[in-house]
Amino acid sequence: MKNLIIASTSTVFGLGYLEYLFPVLENHFKNVSTIVFIPYARPSGITHDEYTSKVADAFEKIGKKIIGLHTFENPIEAISNAEGIFTGGGNTFLLVKQLHQTGVMTALKTALLNGTPYLGCSAGSNITGLTMETTNDMPIVYPPSFQTLGMVPFNINPHYLDPIEGSTHMGETRETRINEFHAFNTQPVLGLREGSWLEVRGEKITLKGELTARLFKQNQNPIELETESDLSHLS
Amino acid sequence: MKNLIIASTSTVFGLGYLEYLFPVLENHFKNVSTIVFIPYARPSGITHDEYTSKVADAFEKIGKKIIGLHTFENPIEAISNAEGIFTGGGNTFLLVKQLHQTGVMTALKTALLNGTPYLGCSAGSNITGLTMETTNDMPIVYPPSFQTLGMVPFNINPHYLDPIEGSTHMGETRETRINEFHAFNTQPVLGLREGSWLEVRGEKITLKGELTARLFKQNQNPIELETESDLSHLS
Repeated sequence: MKNLIIASTSTVFGLGYLEYLFPVLENHFKNVSTIVFIPYARPSGITHDEYTSKVADAFEKIGKKIIGLHTFENPIEAISNAEGIFTGGGNTFLLVKQLHQTGVMTALKTALLNGTPYLGCSAGSNITGLTMETTNDMPIVYPPSFQTLGMVPFNINPHYLDPIEGSTHMGETRETRINEFHAFNTQPVLGLREGSWLEVRGEKITLKGELTARLFKQNQNPIELETESDLSHLS
Repeated sequence: MKNLIIASTSTVFGLGYLEYLFPVLENHFKNVSTIVFIPYARPSGITHDEYTSKVADAFEKIGKKIIGLHTFENPIEAISNAEGIFTGGGNTFLLVKQLHQTGVMTALKTALLNGTPYLGCSAGSNITGLTMETTNDMPIVYPPSFQTLGMVPFNINPHYLDPIEGSTHMGETRETRINEFHAFNTQPVLGLREGSWLEVRGEKITLKGELTARLFKQNQNPIELETESDLSHLS
């Protein structure tokens, strides 16, 4: 049975890395002592070691040990044997490229369907959707596919940003971009604002955090979903 | 000899479509009566016909006729025979996918190397760089390659945006994204602000418009380039 926390962001303004999620994570990983960390998204291009060390410092505060996936000789086996898994944010193209090239994408899907507790933040959340095609990231490398894990029956847009009122910038707003996505794709897109997350327990998907989330469906006006909304039947 | 106008945006705040560029375009297309328009980027998912009609209305004001590339039976031949070419903005992934799938990417490269006058805006400018990997767009479709025309020896980031001072949003700034690009790629990236354009005449590349542009090179601090800067030797 699926057991995931899918967070818009690792960090909310004014707090330390993952800090706003600590109470949630203590419960989510309560039967886990060691978490395998997938550092492939490499925010700002930092190394796998640097990234893992930052994550280990944060999880130490809730008594969990972190091991970077890059330190295992066989990453597929490491994922299959993991007690718990965390995929951090960074660049989604980089993350998805490496997940496909190493075969970890498939192993990860199997592990999550088998119930391994999972945390994703930002890029690590984007990959729990059907495809990575609603990422905000720059395509700095070319992945062999845009397909992702499909742990929820829709796409995720993390760090969802409302249009900036009075802006004179002519580049597209996030909403315009998601509407363009829907000119060519049918699945719903959930815009998760920073501070929101999804809790997935089996087939039940619940919106958590204090904010509303913005739901986009093809050929329909977007709607705001209240926290604690049940998204299980969305498709 | 190459003959290109590569503009950050089609539209600046407060003016009509292409209006700020009319004086430049009258000169650029002075020996051209009919321009072939490439509508593949489809902003907001509008149809090729709708997009072409909008562009035709604008060019009528400077006495030029527009024909949409989608109306030709053989788009490769149409590009080879064009007097002038314009690629409009929209979604770069969609544009690049269709350019590669139709074979127009190769035909366009040949035409531009042969001196056909070209205008690109936004996505249509992004494709004049070495790759599309510094686009701001959402990856709503999967192109067979990220390679583009290489009419300039660097990558372009159109609609370049400076970090918003005092922002509490934790998503990456444009500068952070371009730095991530440079963790994995060596070519320079030119951040072109809205209202700026490049003029390419043969091997000479000049920054035009009233603003400075921001140049990013791997492992170096970014620098601001004044208008009229010569970018010919950038690589």
